[in-house]
Amino acid sequence: MRIAIDVMGGDEAPHATIVGAARAALDNPALELLLFGPFQRLHAELSRLPRPMAAATSRLVLCDAPDVIGQGATAAWALRHGKQTSMARMLQSLADGQAQAGVSAGNTAALVALSRQALGTVAGISRPAISTAIPARGDRRCYLLDLGANVDSPATRLVDFALMGAVMARHVDAVAMPRIALLNVGAEATKGSASVRQADTLLRAYPAEGAFTYQGYAEGGDLFSGKLDVVVCDGFVGNAVLKASEGLAGMLVERVQAAFDAHWSGRLASLLARPVLKRLKRELDPVRYNGASLLGLDGIVVKSHGGTGADGFHYAIKRAVQEVEQNLPGQLATQLMAHSATLN
Amino acid sequence: MRIAIDVMGGDEAPHATIVGAARAALDNPALELLLFGPFQRLHAELSRLPRPMAAATSRLVLCDAPDVIGQGATAAWALRHGKQTSMARMLQSLADGQAQAGVSAGNTAALVALSRQALGTVAGISRPAISTAIPARGDRRCYLLDLGANVDSPATRLVDFALMGAVMARHVDAVAMPRIALLNVGAEATKGSASVRQADTLLRAYPAEGAFTYQGYAEGGDLFSGKLDVVVCDGFVGNAVLKASEGLAGMLVERVQAAFDAHWSGRLASLLARPVLKRLKRELDPVRYNGASLLGLDGIVVKSHGGTGADGFHYAIKRAVQEVEQNLPGQLATQLMAHSATLN
Repeated sequence: MRIAIDVMGGDEAPHATIVGAARAALDNPALELLLFGPFQRLHAELSRLPRPMAAATSRLVLCDAPDVIGQGATAAWALRHGKQTSMARMLQSLADGQAQAGVSAGNTAALVALSRQALGTVAGISRPAISTAIPARGDRRCYLLDLGANVDSPATRLVDFALMGAVMARHVDAVAMPRIALLNVGAEATKGSASVRQADTLLRAYPAEGAFTYQGYAEGGDLFSGKLDVVVCDGFVGNAVLKASEGLAGMLVERVQAAFDAHWSGRLASLLARPVLKRLKRELDPVRYNGASLLGLDGIVVKSHGGTGADGFHYAIKRAVQEVEQNLPGQLATQLMAHSATLN
Repeated sequence: MRIAIDVMGGDEAPHATIVGAARAALDNPALELLLFGPFQRLHAELSRLPRPMAAATSRLVLCDAPDVIGQGATAAWALRHGKQTSMARMLQSLADGQAQAGVSAGNTAALVALSRQALGTVAGISRPAISTAIPARGDRRCYLLDLGANVDSPATRLVDFALMGAVMARHVDAVAMPRIALLNVGAEATKGSASVRQADTLLRAYPAEGAFTYQGYAEGGDLFSGKLDVVVCDGFVGNAVLKASEGLAGMLVERVQAAFDAHWSGRLASLLARPVLKRLKRELDPVRYNGASLLGLDGIVVKSHGGTGADGFHYAIKRAVQEVEQNLPGQLATQLMAHSATLN
């Protein structure tokens, strides 16, 4: 299997991305990774890899891309001037069939726009969405989408998101019958914006036999209940909810730590609380650790967190491998065709 | 000081609300509370108050209201058919000048609509907003608004929210120069919905000398940074963010608890972790414990959480007292007049 990597995206690139890629290659002997970035930077980073990782370099293929997309670049700029960037070339390699999936920790807006340009969307899907699984009660996970690929979404697009989320939960997490809900300000039918209410009507009428069960409206807190597998909202709301959750989880873990440090001697507190808190922190920062998927594309692209370290980038590559194994875009296309067959 | 109480709102009403009111009266000898609800229910609950609280009953004035607004009622229903309800009569007592502030743990949509009908808004403010202070790093607090009084908000309304939040932070929390930001999907000027970008332009041009400093865009995670005093967004987003934060905090505290229980013997875990976690839980559930304010009304109304217990309701009453002492609507009116004077 071949995965294409934009090594220049993210705050700690290219060091963290290349170390993460080398770890992924070591971890999975069937993996070949195409690394896109300026040749000299690639060579310099690779030569500095610690010895055990150097064993993986035979499966790291260097692919020159002279330019880099900055964090401040707009999607429009990327589409017009980004052709020579590591991100665009990485995506082009997917479009050309040289790799089965791509991973980047770079500028999200640019990644969405360039992915859509290079790969197109699955027939029937108008726009890609970004999704990640957030941890929920009872060791379950809940896919939240959209996380910011679109700033607002008409009802039909929210329905697309529901389908994409269902395919994700079913094929990546093996949830036989994903439970889907629409995020709203209350559970009552009279509440919410017009697009959410219209999407509710569409989803109630959707012939989802065997594909998912639509549970109606959810409120923000239901995300973590463990009773839903997919929660759908527009990208503005999803982005705000996800980032607030990340911020809150970070603050909470710090507070628990501080509270233990204050109540118990430093040494005892470390002994008691730190291992527990470290694991929690990891679990509660899903994007940083696991990456997010661009769904609806006719291809597989995983967005690793901009602040990711080598570990997080390694996970994002694993996620891409999983999506390739499950043929996620193919499953989505099949689902959509089954649906249009029902309608005709 | 007189505060009017809708004792019939909330999941545990009227027991929790009446116990909370009795505690507030005991706590503050200057307080007289008007309790609105069906006479028989009021009498029955009062007669069951434990002896120490019975001392407060002389300052609990029973006001009959035969009807109750259910959780499922719409704002339209409340406006048309709600006249005899405990909520509407409580608000009418404010409008008639019998009390200086009102508190309810009932249906939010009905409370917003009935409050607006009974009290009107401060001149210059088109719609009320709901706000609460959420805990942030460094023992600071950040006011988030709107939390759901409006499902979407044009740019001028977002600017109103900023002004209201500034008055709140300045007069209730004594922040000399509140730092205000607009919630968006990214910090870059090119991102976000049209109304948010337009509100950004308006706020940059706003003559806020001495009233607040506008800090531009914030992302969801910045809420908890301790670097902002007010974060403004539309009610759909604010509601989703607040409820997700409540849900996450609840799950987190449970997980920390479970992790300690698993690592250490039950007895030791209780001893070590429970007091710390209990405090955290309280701090992290601001609405349940402290109530939310309806801002922009020509009067003071505090919304206690629907799931509130007596403690939370007591806090909501204290919050109302604080807002009366600070003359919040008057401060907002002064701020708005100062602004229109600048423009003319």
